[in-house]
Amino acid sequence: MNKKPVIGISMSMLSDTNGVFAKYPRAYVNDDYIRSVNENGGIALTLPICEDEENLEYYTDIIDGLILSGGHDINPHLYSEEIHPKTGDIFPRRDTFDMVLLKKMLEKNKPVFGICRGFQLINVAFGGSLVQDLDELGKNHIKHWQDQDCAMPVHKINFKGENFFTELYGKETFTNSWHHQVLKDVAEGFEVCGRTSDGVIEAIEDKKRNIIAVQWHPEMMSINDKDAQNLFKKFIQNINKGV
Amino acid sequence: MNKKPVIGISMSMLSDTNGVFAKYPRAYVNDDYIRSVNENGGIALTLPICEDEENLEYYTDIIDGLILSGGHDINPHLYSEEIHPKTGDIFPRRDTFDMVLLKKMLEKNKPVFGICRGFQLINVAFGGSLVQDLDELGKNHIKHWQDQDCAMPVHKINFKGENFFTELYGKETFTNSWHHQVLKDVAEGFEVCGRTSDGVIEAIEDKKRNIIAVQWHPEMMSINDKDAQNLFKKFIQNINKGV
Amino acid sequence: MNKKPVIGISMSMLSDTNGVFAKYPRAYVNDDYIRSVNENGGIALTLPICEDEENLEYYTDIIDGLILSGGHDINPHLYSEEIHPKTGDIFPRRDTFDMVLLKKMLEKNKPVFGICRGFQLINVAFGGSLVQDLDELGKNHIKHWQDQDCAMPVHKINFKGENFFTELYGKETFTNSWHHQVLKDVAEGFEVCGRTSDGVIEAIEDKKRNIIAVQWHPEMMSINDKDAQNLFKKFIQNINKGV
Amino acid sequence: MNKKPVIGISMSMLSDTNGVFAKYPRAYVNDDYIRSVNENGGIALTLPICEDEENLEYYTDIIDGLILSGGHDINPHLYSEEIHPKTGDIFPRRDTFDMVLLKKMLEKNKPVFGICRGFQLINVAFGGSLVQDLDELGKNHIKHWQDQDCAMPVHKINFKGENFFTELYGKETFTNSWHHQVLKDVAEGFEVCGRTSDGVIEAIEDKKRNIIAVQWHPEMMSINDKDAQNLFKKFIQNINKGV
Amino acid sequence: MNKKPVIGISMSMLSDTNGVFAKYPRAYVNDDYIRSVNENGGIALTLPICEDEENLEYYTDIIDGLILSGGHDINPHLYSEEIHPKTGDIFPRRDTFDMVLLKKMLEKNKPVFGICRGFQLINVAFGGSLVQDLDELGKNHIKHWQDQDCAMPVHKINFKGENFFTELYGKETFTNSWHHQVLKDVAEGFEVCGRTSDGVIEAIEDKKRNIIAVQWHPEMMSINDKDAQNLFKKFIQNINKGV
Amino acid sequence: MNKKPVIGISMSMLSDTNGVFAKYPRAYVNDDYIRSVNENGGIALTLPICEDEENLEYYTDIIDGLILSGGHDINPHLYSEEIHPKTGDIFPRRDTFDMVLLKKMLEKNKPVFGICRGFQLINVAFGGSLVQDLDELGKNHIKHWQDQDCAMPVHKINFKGENFFTELYGKETFTNSWHHQVLKDVAEGFEVCGRTSDGVIEAIEDKKRNIIAVQWHPEMMSINDKDAQNLFKKFIQNINKGV
Amino acid sequence: MNKKPVIGISMSMLSDTNGVFAKYPRAYVNDDYIRSVNENGGIALTLPICEDEENLEYYTDIIDGLILSGGHDINPHLYSEEIHPKTGDIFPRRDTFDMVLLKKMLEKNKPVFGICRGFQLINVAFGGSLVQDLDELGKNHIKHWQDQDCAMPVHKINFKGENFFTELYGKETFTNSWHHQVLKDVAEGFEVCGRTSDGVIEAIEDKKRNIIAVQWHPEMMSINDKDAQNLFKKFIQNINKGV
Amino acid sequence: MNKKPVIGISMSMLSDTNGVFAKYPRAYVNDDYIRSVNENGGIALTLPICEDEENLEYYTDIIDGLILSGGHDINPHLYSEEIHPKTGDIFPRRDTFDMVLLKKMLEKNKPVFGICRGFQLINVAFGGSLVQDLDELGKNHIKHWQDQDCAMPVHKINFKGENFFTELYGKETFTNSWHHQVLKDVAEGFEVCGRTSDGVIEAIEDKKRNIIAVQWHPEMMSINDKDAQNLFKKFIQNINKGV
Repeated sequence: MNKKPVIGISMSMLSDTNGVFAKYPRAYVNDDYIRSVNENGGIALTLPICEDEENLEYYTDIIDGLILSGGHDINPHLYSEEIHPKTGDIFPRRDTFDMVLLKKMLEKNKPVFGICRGFQLINVAFGGSLVQDLDELGKNHIKHWQDQDCAMPVHKINFKGENFFTELYGKETFTNSWHHQVLKDVAEGFEVCGRTSDGVIEAIEDKKRNIIAVQWHPEMMSINDKDAQNLFKKFIQNINKGV
Repeated sequence: MNKKPVIGISMSMLSDTNGVFAKYPRAYVNDDYIRSVNENGGIALTLPICEDEENLEYYTDIIDGLILSGGHDINPHLYSEEIHPKTGDIFPRRDTFDMVLLKKMLEKNKPVFGICRGFQLINVAFGGSLVQDLDELGKNHIKHWQDQDCAMPVHKINFKGENFFTELYGKETFTNSWHHQVLKDVAEGFEVCGRTSDGVIEAIEDKKRNIIAVQWHPEMMSINDKDAQNLFKKFIQNINKGV
Repeated sequence: MNKKPVIGISMSMLSDTNGVFAKYPRAYVNDDYIRSVNENGGIALTLPICEDEENLEYYTDIIDGLILSGGHDINPHLYSEEIHPKTGDIFPRRDTFDMVLLKKMLEKNKPVFGICRGFQLINVAFGGSLVQDLDELGKNHIKHWQDQDCAMPVHKINFKGENFFTELYGKETFTNSWHHQVLKDVAEGFEVCGRTSDGVIEAIEDKKRNIIAVQWHPEMMSINDKDAQNLFKKFIQNINKGV
Repeated sequence: MNKKPVIGISMSMLSDTNGVFAKYPRAYVNDDYIRSVNENGGIALTLPICEDEENLEYYTDIIDGLILSGGHDINPHLYSEEIHPKTGDIFPRRDTFDMVLLKKMLEKNKPVFGICRGFQLINVAFGGSLVQDLDELGKNHIKHWQDQDCAMPVHKINFKGENFFTELYGKETFTNSWHHQVLKDVAEGFEVCGRTSDGVIEAIEDKKRNIIAVQWHPEMMSINDKDAQNLFKKFIQNINKGV
Repeated sequence: MNKKPVIGISMSMLSDTNGVFAKYPRAYVNDDYIRSVNENGGIALTLPICEDEENLEYYTDIIDGLILSGGHDINPHLYSEEIHPKTGDIFPRRDTFDMVLLKKMLEKNKPVFGICRGFQLINVAFGGSLVQDLDELGKNHIKHWQDQDCAMPVHKINFKGENFFTELYGKETFTNSWHHQVLKDVAEGFEVCGRTSDGVIEAIEDKKRNIIAVQWHPEMMSINDKDAQNLFKKFIQNINKGV
Repeated sequence: MNKKPVIGISMSMLSDTNGVFAKYPRAYVNDDYIRSVNENGGIALTLPICEDEENLEYYTDIIDGLILSGGHDINPHLYSEEIHPKTGDIFPRRDTFDMVLLKKMLEKNKPVFGICRGFQLINVAFGGSLVQDLDELGKNHIKHWQDQDCAMPVHKINFKGENFFTELYGKETFTNSWHHQVLKDVAEGFEVCGRTSDGVIEAIEDKKRNIIAVQWHPEMMSINDKDAQNLFKKFIQNINKGV
Repeated sequence: MNKKPVIGISMSMLSDTNGVFAKYPRAYVNDDYIRSVNENGGIALTLPICEDEENLEYYTDIIDGLILSGGHDINPHLYSEEIHPKTGDIFPRRDTFDMVLLKKMLEKNKPVFGICRGFQLINVAFGGSLVQDLDELGKNHIKHWQDQDCAMPVHKINFKGENFFTELYGKETFTNSWHHQVLKDVAEGFEVCGRTSDGVIEAIEDKKRNIIAVQWHPEMMSINDKDAQNLFKKFIQNINKGV
Repeated sequence: MNKKPVIGISMSMLSDTNGVFAKYPRAYVNDDYIRSVNENGGIALTLPICEDEENLEYYTDIIDGLILSGGHDINPHLYSEEIHPKTGDIFPRRDTFDMVLLKKMLEKNKPVFGICRGFQLINVAFGGSLVQDLDELGKNHIKHWQDQDCAMPVHKINFKGENFFTELYGKETFTNSWHHQVLKDVAEGFEVCGRTSDGVIEAIEDKKRNIIAVQWHPEMMSINDKDAQNLFKKFIQNINKGV
């Protein structure tokens, strides 16, 4: 096969906060996801939230790999917790959409790459859980919501083991950070590949299920960061190689 | 073929106006387009702006019909005018993307449905021109920017001739209105099918090229308006019938 | 009969413009209407917009008089015009509600008092029409949108004839002013009782139909203005007297 | 009796926060209360805040049941506490109005349904007290101010005993949550029917006094939630049945 | 007499536009008036708006001279015109206060100095009139609302005749400009002393009544402008000299 | 003497927070102070901040009593503390002005009435100190910043002893509350007359120095509260009586 | 000489519009000027506004060329006009600073490059004049204030003659547009080199005085536009060549 | 040498937070730095951030002394810490620029004066570290972010030892305060010269390296504060004296 792999990107919704179109739903995904796929060997295809079985089957048929994108907090009911006061906006319809896509990709033996919310959703989908807010861990942690220049690396990730990430990065890389929730119980079958210095889990892999996932936002960094570009390249090349 | 037709929807970009993500590009299209396709017989597939020939070829291969969505003003240079002070934001990259999609659909003999900006772009693509702002026509016109409740019908469209619209609606329908530019010279090959009482062109068809287009926003009305729903149904059913 | 007359007041809707309750509908009417009725001899009963025939019948059964309150522009389609660019927000559901109330009151021979929008709606309901924006009359008019201190009188009304208003005020009163549309064709059966110096119609009466209506906002002025208080007193006393 | 029961809904006040009408009082109640009554078997009648004995007598004469609606915090002086720094806006005039309505309904043997503030007011009116802010209970509670999509269920209520709620729901229902104060001492005569998992009291009943009350907002959920619709249906049907 | 003259300064009112103190009245006058008096030979005494005859008598007894300060537009009814749509906020209570002060100063043979609104009020008080907005004179005028750096001179005033201003300035001075209304008919007894190049009247004097008045804001300029300082000095010295 | 006493009111400064006049100083005092004096037997005279010895001497010569008004926090250096992070805006120039006025009134044997900041300034002027923020006392206090309807009483003051306040109120009154700092060490010579239930000092008197002072804002309440009106009446009548 | 030429860039001032630093002056120049010089062969040196003769002499001694940057409108008094109502903010101190720099460069025989305001200032400095607002020329002009994406070309410039611009561009280039004033009378000695299609002068040169100037903003375009980069390159290379 | 010393001032960047120029980089430095140099014996030269070795060499060649100005937090990675959640915006490009300037000045034996961020950067550059937020030291500290009137002194600095500061000030001076980070480990070779009463280090000197630095903002105070003026004077005079 000589065409580029088609990479589906799960979409979200946003709305204006005021004016005549306040609350009017707009299907969207940050353009960086699309750019990151198109510049690193794939064809980006954005997948809008829907419930039609025929659509969902069709979407997962035509794509060769799936990126689960960032955004809303996962509904804590999905990991058997009540909603903590610091949990932000949830979006149950999106949770379901993402989980159905994930399940169908697994059934069809196609690889999945989770980013931020995608990373958290994958963990929850397979039985893991989340810390609903970093402050629940006490105050001795580093800054995980950088709140400036989204492409700027602000912390180091330390990798270990033999996995997708140590193959790619060796022992470390520097990344951005934009999250307030973190992994608590890691879902069965997943290897913890990377952590920040304060112990936050930042990268996991499940080789059998053909899933990788990261807590940071490589799609924001790929504009000028080789390490971030290589993450997309390797994910896409593995598809071509039939990995 | 018994699967539902796949309808590509051209996407746009938006950005936050302030905060840390001000100007950060987000690929989007109003969810109403997706809903209108999914609820009326099609499978919606959103197509993000890109320039890669392989992507563009792929997108137009997998879709059975194309909706060119609303939004930015067309760059007046495309109809050989300088930019008028009242022309709003233009987006040359999007103009090119939409025109390439349109050209490829034509080559592949697949139908196209233009909405608002899509309606204007089709006219310009085939040699027509636009009035850059309604006020250039003098002050004796009705309200074409309703600025409230996007689904509310605010004016009547009068149809004539034998075409897609008179087949569907007979002599008239009531629609919403959200535009400040209007068609001036109509591109060769297109039939003017509908106008408002102040003479503004609201619906055109080119049967040979398999294109219909409307100035209003049926996707906003289809939430509760039969006439708007039927417009999508007929466009999609025609694909199934091989029209 | 020794109980106070019950005066129904037609309600409107408003919404927050931003935040989590943006667009959330709240049934409301300015408290000044309620205060003006309660302080001048009546029992105020606020009537929320609805379509149920049983509700509408019930509402008009229990009230002795009706005040049609101020607010939205009337849908110009109701007087056979297209919407002018300067017409503001319209609210067709409210137009219908108000007209049904008006019709039922007429059938039940009970008096009606229109204020601002209510004044305009009454004129349209019986076949009259409106100027969609004062500027359509040219620029030689006085200020009709005072935009400060809602209770402050800003212009004089000159009355003539023998009617409710000349009985009450003689030749003149001073009033506030908060409108951008004015009466054009006066509905059959109505007497023009008062005008401002620039000719704008400010007060009408139809003795047979038992209707009075004013363009200004006496309910805002009644907080400290005798003339405004007396307008409510006289309307309510007439009910007691069986006028 | 074959007409629908008339359900009074206690109103509140709101104001613009800026502009020429800042602080101008508008009598209002969320339209969802009206819709919930009208769609589930009743005739909604909105009752504006007032002090006139004749009005209050009249209002409670014409209605068959009363809904005490949500909104302001109760003045803590009413349960013999000073105002805590986290107590929000209070509205003593409204407290009095609601309490008089409640008392008159009790005297006239007509049923009352309290929602959120209404739930809290009923408890206080009969001698109960409130926790002035959830944080006073420590930090181990779930999210009770959901701050997004007002109709979305965010927590479970567990019911027990034999009462209105277990008849209706059996052991549980899922509800929204919009409050920062909770019941402390429950007023004599009331049965605690439902609680959330963190022990917050969410539903009470006093069969003798013919009162039910809930901490959540069923009127916001009834747009698309059967359980919420049934709550209104059962309250209204009981009136018809003379319960 | 060896004490400094006491100069009364008429005060105005302002309010917050939002927040909990929106519309809360605050008595104020720009500190520049006070500074200009105190730095140029006088003792500033600010006079709050009131209606008590005893207060008004007392205020005009203790002061040796009066400055009528800038601000609101004069109520056009005071010069027998209806309110023009471009007239800004009026403040009838302040108009009355200023006029009573002016009348009492005249009776007590004490000098008055009008600034901007004070200049316009003096003209109206003695029978003159105003152009309600500069645009009523057509578009061929210079900028009279400078809208930046309030102390910056933006136009020249040309003086002529033998009066307070030619004594002080000779033929010209350069001043700031902050007004949208201008003198139309000049009140009897006043000499037009200065104009801008587009003919707008900027300075008047009535020697018999002991009144000077200017359209510009010397109190804003006196922070660093000799000409503006001298205007206050001369007004105050004349009092000492018994002029 | 049969004229009303003249009551000086110390002024403050405020500024716009944006626009062309941002930071432009405006001398002001809330009109409620003026109204409270004028309606309760005095002639209000507002005293603008200045440093000229002649002005200060003049001001304290012509007034019969002084009200030190509310506003800025006192510079903690005046009671030998460094500035705490929760201390708000300070205004050293105003501190000096107020203290000079206070000192001159004392020398001239004229009575002084301190309100809120005035209450705190008096305590500091005579050697007392302040708690820089209520939170420094721990969290067990009631709400002292009511943040709604400035005239609404929100807590009780308990009085004891034989002093101005027990003469006026007996054992208690209900007041509003708008402060975040409270008295710590009370200056020598002052009697603590009233406290709230959480022990905050709310009223002091020094009979020898002829000073009373309160922590609340009676001038805001006097619009409709007898107790507040009587506070001004008694202060002013005492002057007439030569108390 | 083998070091890069040093290019002085005249600075401006800006301020925050609100907050504690509102109006606080910050010396600034858009970084694009600096980047455009540094990337195209020069060393950028920013010159802050000042009046010291020694500074000004020093600045013009150490630089090899000067760029007069964009920003404020020129004070119309400099070309003997009064200020038109549509003239925006002026900054006389900056006018003087720029003119002194210009004069000293001329005396020292060093080249000057004017951009936008710099272009207008040069024209005025040598006796030319400006149209104070484009609308004064009637409405038949194209859009000269693009108000989106500052680097996007929006109109064509047509060049003629033999000069710096025709050497560089031949007959045309496409540029951005960000101005509301235009050249009226061209100063003696300057050749008009380029115009837009509506006749607006966009480029001038005076070979003897060694000055070029353009109405558009090449420094904004040089981020990705060859033509804009070449404009800086040629200006800087000419210095090296001793042109 | 009889010319004034040339003092380089390191620049920063700022951007609009919304509108069409949101995020557009503007090179800037507060004008107070420039004014403080120009008024106290130097010639101010502003140095824009760049990376070109030739520029950096040139800048440090032409200046006689360097002021490292205030602003962004230092990247904690430079003192081997991860970023604390309360660290504000960092600007790595600026850190590098400032450090290169500092290093080159040292090599060229020219004096450096660090202010606020400059003070912190110097400490870090030579091996010291910072407390990332004052709150990390507990709550017992005074106000170090004054947040009003930037020139107002708010705390005392106590000096000791024999150094630049005790020579200038003796034992103390009063300064403003605008920082949230403070020195932790002081870099080798630096003497701690001054502290506030809560122990925060406010002034350091390294005589060998010819560096002084202060935590406060003397450039803001120099507008009217002798002590602040003298700090600049002494720094500049020392250059003339060859200190």
